[in-house]
Amino acid sequence: MMTRPEPDGTSFFAKGDVSFMEPIRRFADHIDLLDQRWLPADVRYLSCVNAGDVIAAIRALAVRGAPAIGVAGSYALWLESLQPSEAPMEQHLRDAAERIKSARPTAVNLAWAVDRAYRMVQNTALANIPSVLKRVADDLLSEETARNDQLARYGAELLSEHSRILTHCNTGSLATPGVGTALGIIREGYRLGLVKEVFVDETRPLLQGARLTAWELQQDEIPATLITDSMAAALMAQGKINAVVVGADRIARNGDTANKIGTYGLAVQAHYHQIPFYVAAPMSTLDPDLDTGSDIPIEERDGDEIRRIQGVLMAPEDIPVYNPAFDVTPGTLISAIITDRGVAHQPYLRSLPALIEQELNSTIMEDDNR
Amino acid sequence: MMTRPEPDGTSFFAKGDVSFMEPIRRFADHIDLLDQRWLPADVRYLSCVNAGDVIAAIRALAVRGAPAIGVAGSYALWLESLQPSEAPMEQHLRDAAERIKSARPTAVNLAWAVDRAYRMVQNTALANIPSVLKRVADDLLSEETARNDQLARYGAELLSEHSRILTHCNTGSLATPGVGTALGIIREGYRLGLVKEVFVDETRPLLQGARLTAWELQQDEIPATLITDSMAAALMAQGKINAVVVGADRIARNGDTANKIGTYGLAVQAHYHQIPFYVAAPMSTLDPDLDTGSDIPIEERDGDEIRRIQGVLMAPEDIPVYNPAFDVTPGTLISAIITDRGVAHQPYLRSLPALIEQELNSTIMEDDNR
Repeated sequence: MMTRPEPDGTSFFAKGDVSFMEPIRRFADHIDLLDQRWLPADVRYLSCVNAGDVIAAIRALAVRGAPAIGVAGSYALWLESLQPSEAPMEQHLRDAAERIKSARPTAVNLAWAVDRAYRMVQNTALANIPSVLKRVADDLLSEETARNDQLARYGAELLSEHSRILTHCNTGSLATPGVGTALGIIREGYRLGLVKEVFVDETRPLLQGARLTAWELQQDEIPATLITDSMAAALMAQGKINAVVVGADRIARNGDTANKIGTYGLAVQAHYHQIPFYVAAPMSTLDPDLDTGSDIPIEERDGDEIRRIQGVLMAPEDIPVYNPAFDVTPGTLISAIITDRGVAHQPYLRSLPALIEQELNSTIMEDDNR
Repeated sequence: MMTRPEPDGTSFFAKGDVSFMEPIRRFADHIDLLDQRWLPADVRYLSCVNAGDVIAAIRALAVRGAPAIGVAGSYALWLESLQPSEAPMEQHLRDAAERIKSARPTAVNLAWAVDRAYRMVQNTALANIPSVLKRVADDLLSEETARNDQLARYGAELLSEHSRILTHCNTGSLATPGVGTALGIIREGYRLGLVKEVFVDETRPLLQGARLTAWELQQDEIPATLITDSMAAALMAQGKINAVVVGADRIARNGDTANKIGTYGLAVQAHYHQIPFYVAAPMSTLDPDLDTGSDIPIEERDGDEIRRIQGVLMAPEDIPVYNPAFDVTPGTLISAIITDRGVAHQPYLRSLPALIEQELNSTIMEDDNR
């Protein structure tokens, strides 16, 4: 393991010392979560033995990215089934499920994954619960990997030749198991010779674009240029962006999409410049219970995430800060929503429920086959 | 003078230790420029004895803000007139003027101020040149202060009650002599009880909003909330912004405005949300020779301004970076241009030349009266 250099003004960031990393590793009685706060200078895994450990890791953004959080949440319920408890197992797991789901309120994958796991418990003999929960989480991990591959293929079909793509935040192998969502599409598009260049916005406040996406693209030797979030519109006006591709944390039935703060502003700018704006997400990010985005809870985070960078104060210490982690982009500004079940176009109130129904039917079939 | 704490993760930023500061101070044989790179933790003045010193300070962004740069440029020509030279004085000053004007190509105030000073030399006896140049620069300094006061009054008239205003970069007492341009309007509006709250975007890459504007507003006890550049659109969608007010580095006859990178994106977002978008600038920022913004040269700066924050690497060391210091907002997206001669409305091709003519007539009268 590399040690993390102190922020001494020289080298927070080490280069070329890390290769492909899994965000989540499962062992016999615990999981290891890659602590993305120090990436890529420092590759640290957090060992988690119970739900509390996983919740703390999610809250601290040690593990991030909606699909990765979903998988981590599913494993958290399994870990909890291994813990001694005075309450009956079902109640113990029900309580744990609620705690886990509240760790990040915006991303729906977490609630979806935990509910899915918890449902499996209800008809399972007590002694089998841990092994069932482990299998459910293992399946989810490999499912998400396969979903990303499929999603990447669907998404790449939308790209024209010589595409210069703008992306936001990190949606790659660090945010999801597998190739990633938006970044998976970019990878597949590049492999097919369609992607000429990628513009990566740094994604303030936590710089996932600069720290993680720029680094992932560099590892893959895909031409990437870093910009600040505020430079996107100028690039669009210059005709240098052919498409914007982003991920999602929760998508309502009408296509309204919660994603990393800044996404909505890019969508407005893309709309003004008539540039296609694509959202990429596995089906688990669709929330079939949500009619519109106005009901998506938006997590607000500590103001010091903006005031300080790497602990160094960049603004008056006591200046009030507004720090929403996400914003909601209305479906009307989204050119297409790319899922592992296919591409949905407007009007989403028709196209998304159709995909959701396909997904439900297929899941029932898979469950019947088990 | 305070010493600047090292970026040790605790206190880059000191609080409450500095009061109102002048960006430029003139002495008998030199000028002191406030070095804004370390503000507000550290109040350092750079002593400049010749044009080269001033040019270096402008290039390094030690002195910034279009009006302040104009004044600094005017003093630079005076300082140069005090230097020994083998060339004849007029040629020496002509060469110096060209060098000074090229220090920051985008802001027109610099070229305007230097040309204005140089014109005065041409009909002046050799022995009187230094004193004339000193007077011209002194006059500009007090003129700009008075211009800001007038501009602030015109601008405040456009604000409605309970205004929540978004501003970008720093346009205050650090960027200009006096109360500032956009920030001058905000100050005047607050004094009149019209401004309820100010949202300050941090303004990456150099964080002039977080470091300078947030701090200036705090000194004035005007309620201010800091956001990242990427949060503006979400605030607009929530109805929390009633007006956007920004400064300018150069304005063409059709209203196209070059200003700090990110301005254009905010204008697009304000347009989409039907929020008034105001540009505030003294008449010296209008470029009467420029028909449209497409001819404004845009300075590109070092990529490390984005890769590193306070010297700490935040992105792969060798990732390509696109770092334009400015962008151009088309006049069609600007609700009004507020100057010290009055407020110009669309179509600017009519309203701006009228203001420019007023200004020319008035300047000729002032010169005649001298």
